[in-house]
Amino acid sequence: MRPLGYCRRMRLEQSHRTERFGAVRIHELQRVIQLDSGDATGTTGEGIVSQAAMRAIERQMVIVIPCMNETRRVIEGVLSGIPHDCLIVLVSNSARQPVDRYEMEAQTLEQYCRATERPAIMVHQRDPGLAAAVKAAGMPELIDDDGLVRAGKGEAMLIGMAVAALTGRKYLGYIDADNYVPGAVHEYVKVYAAGLHLAANPYAMVRISWHSKPKLRDGRLFFSRRGRSSEITNEFLNRLVAEYSGFGTEVIATGNAGEHALSLDLGLRMRLAGGFAVEPFEFVELFEQFGGLLDTAHPEVMASSVPVLQIETRNPHFHDNKGEDHVQGMRMQALNVLYHSPVALPPVRQAILDFMVAQQALAPGEEPPRERIYPPVGSLDLDLLRDVLESEAGTFRQLGTRSLVTPLRPRPAALPEPEVFTSA
Amino acid sequence: MRPLGYCRRMRLEQSHRTERFGAVRIHELQRVIQLDSGDATGTTGEGIVSQAAMRAIERQMVIVIPCMNETRRVIEGVLSGIPHDCLIVLVSNSARQPVDRYEMEAQTLEQYCRATERPAIMVHQRDPGLAAAVKAAGMPELIDDDGLVRAGKGEAMLIGMAVAALTGRKYLGYIDADNYVPGAVHEYVKVYAAGLHLAANPYAMVRISWHSKPKLRDGRLFFSRRGRSSEITNEFLNRLVAEYSGFGTEVIATGNAGEHALSLDLGLRMRLAGGFAVEPFEFVELFEQFGGLLDTAHPEVMASSVPVLQIETRNPHFHDNKGEDHVQGMRMQALNVLYHSPVALPPVRQAILDFMVAQQALAPGEEPPRERIYPPVGSLDLDLLRDVLESEAGTFRQLGTRSLVTPLRPRPAALPEPEVFTSA
Repeated sequence: MRPLGYCRRMRLEQSHRTERFGAVRIHELQRVIQLDSGDATGTTGEGIVSQAAMRAIERQMVIVIPCMNETRRVIEGVLSGIPHDCLIVLVSNSARQPVDRYEMEAQTLEQYCRATERPAIMVHQRDPGLAAAVKAAGMPELIDDDGLVRAGKGEAMLIGMAVAALTGRKYLGYIDADNYVPGAVHEYVKVYAAGLHLAANPYAMVRISWHSKPKLRDGRLFFSRRGRSSEITNEFLNRLVAEYSGFGTEVIATGNAGEHALSLDLGLRMRLAGGFAVEPFEFVELFEQFGGLLDTAHPEVMASSVPVLQIETRNPHFHDNKGEDHVQGMRMQALNVLYHSPVALPPVRQAILDFMVAQQALAPGEEPPRERIYPPVGSLDLDLLRDVLESEAGTFRQLGTRSLVTPLRPRPAALPEPEVFTSA
Repeated sequence: MRPLGYCRRMRLEQSHRTERFGAVRIHELQRVIQLDSGDATGTTGEGIVSQAAMRAIERQMVIVIPCMNETRRVIEGVLSGIPHDCLIVLVSNSARQPVDRYEMEAQTLEQYCRATERPAIMVHQRDPGLAAAVKAAGMPELIDDDGLVRAGKGEAMLIGMAVAALTGRKYLGYIDADNYVPGAVHEYVKVYAAGLHLAANPYAMVRISWHSKPKLRDGRLFFSRRGRSSEITNEFLNRLVAEYSGFGTEVIATGNAGEHALSLDLGLRMRLAGGFAVEPFEFVELFEQFGGLLDTAHPEVMASSVPVLQIETRNPHFHDNKGEDHVQGMRMQALNVLYHSPVALPPVRQAILDFMVAQQALAPGEEPPRERIYPPVGSLDLDLLRDVLESEAGTFRQLGTRSLVTPLRPRPAALPEPEVFTSA
């Protein structure tokens, strides 16, 4: 782990404290101080990331955009913010009836790629050919009763990760499609690159905490510092950690971070949760796989470490308001996965139950429902996935002059078969 | 004028059409396609701006931030978006009673400059020492009955330009302090740099048209494409042009642009208007000084040309809502300067009268009021300005390790005495 500090493009606050959980090193939140710090190198002794180093990461990075029914203008804005060298993968779950919004998205992406001379990949989540590819590759869990890939956000992210793995690139970043500020998108990806470089570790994750979130309150705009569901998710994740360390902590600030990036070497080893449980489950999964509490057969990772950088961006996170139901749903899905994790100790589980009952999200005596947890993407037969995608998935499009999904580098021998944990 | 097109950092739409008005060349609006176009060079034959070329402009650019009673958080955000190599000049008209907001701004700026190791200059618009310096330098018109510099926005911009001239830098960009999106600020300055480089002309101006403006409408956010006062200002500016060419035009899209940049070689030759008339008056002044209609003794400029680039940014312009009165005031101040310009032909003047009467902004038979028009900053005795500022203006602060206002390069011999036009 290189010390954090200056980079030519972006200046980050230094992070001095980390919280350890087995091999997992959670860095306390650090702020972006300056979006563009010029060519100044700063005081020697502090970490310096050159523009070239950031470009090197971007050239190895896939940006997955899960997208559902956003307007053309919003999508155009998001695309315009993604640095040129990143490869865009759009995973859409947009309506195809009565208007085919996916075709609109395809036109938008094609036009953008032509104007900017860059490639991209897109696929529709509910394409029967995609479902066939997923089944052939060995993950029938992802398929619903209609024979299609399930419709959740976690499922879109999983598909995006699988496609990213097909490209042979090393890093994966997620960007939500419902972002009204292209400059924020741009900052997120630059933060991914700076963070992944500074982590200097094959198993690294960077999670974004947005600076503020504009909301309507009494007809005025109000800049809220914390998201409604984030507060709860972070609180219980921190309690989970504190139960082991014996020290209260607030280190986890990005439990629900939609915007995050990771090395594929890490991502391919992680199980992903379905729906909106996906983001908080990433922390739970890190603790389960690399926390040193369970026998999970990742000696190569345990011998290294898993840095998790949390970075507060300067731009406000300005997106569509999905309403209170959405937030309540997200909050409860996060608590469901926490509750059922084998690393959650009884006091945390009890606190979750009490909270959910108080919120009337659970009747007294009931157990929280289980969320879907999928096997790691690394367990897929990616060669088969690619072949069936290319031959059967009509919505799978590679924009550009050449195929972007190439026969793979050999899969790491160390990747284990997926293991499924059940809660105690 | 180099052709517009690719640059390493930012990709702009090509602009094919320009409208000429004497030496003034107004380029039609061109869009930013990509915030960061990587190291790709694009098709040969189209203009390419290297990152190095943009940095070269930024190193010669002063960013003036007129500021009045913004919160600390908003100011911090704006500062964080300004590329490192630009020199920040904050001109504040914030309240000093009951709380001294200027001191809060000074602390914010000092803290930011320390963290980022960059210099800055700040001054309060109503500092008696500033008024003394302005009087000594030869512009008593700027002083009000209280013996202080007048309180308008145009006046703040004029002071900013004078300070910029003291630094010996070549370019000046304005950034409003009430911007909630640091990424938008960053994009604006990058657009200034790209535009001024592409203009390749000592007398150049770049004006920003924001992509959209979020507004509250029926409790929802609505992304408006046009500002309320911009539409009117642009319409009448375009009519002014069309009366000469005989062809209707919509080329002017940035009549009220608060965000704009220009070479000081151009700026020092221009008169500025007071208050909110300042921005639309810039177009009027370009037509008056360099339109070839009036004898204005700028042979060196007339032998060259004055490109005005208009660039639509990707980010929404997201700022505080100043209310309907503010908008109506801005609109009418723009029309006042247009009406009284000697280059406005009678049909345009009549249309302005009709509009103002219809808006009940003017009684039938009345004339629109005149706005204050100040002599060019180039007519100031800048050596005296600097000396009195440094000795008498207590709020004039240079943050950093050395003096930023240096004895000047000799004033261009060609700078004329200010001329005052009266309308026909």
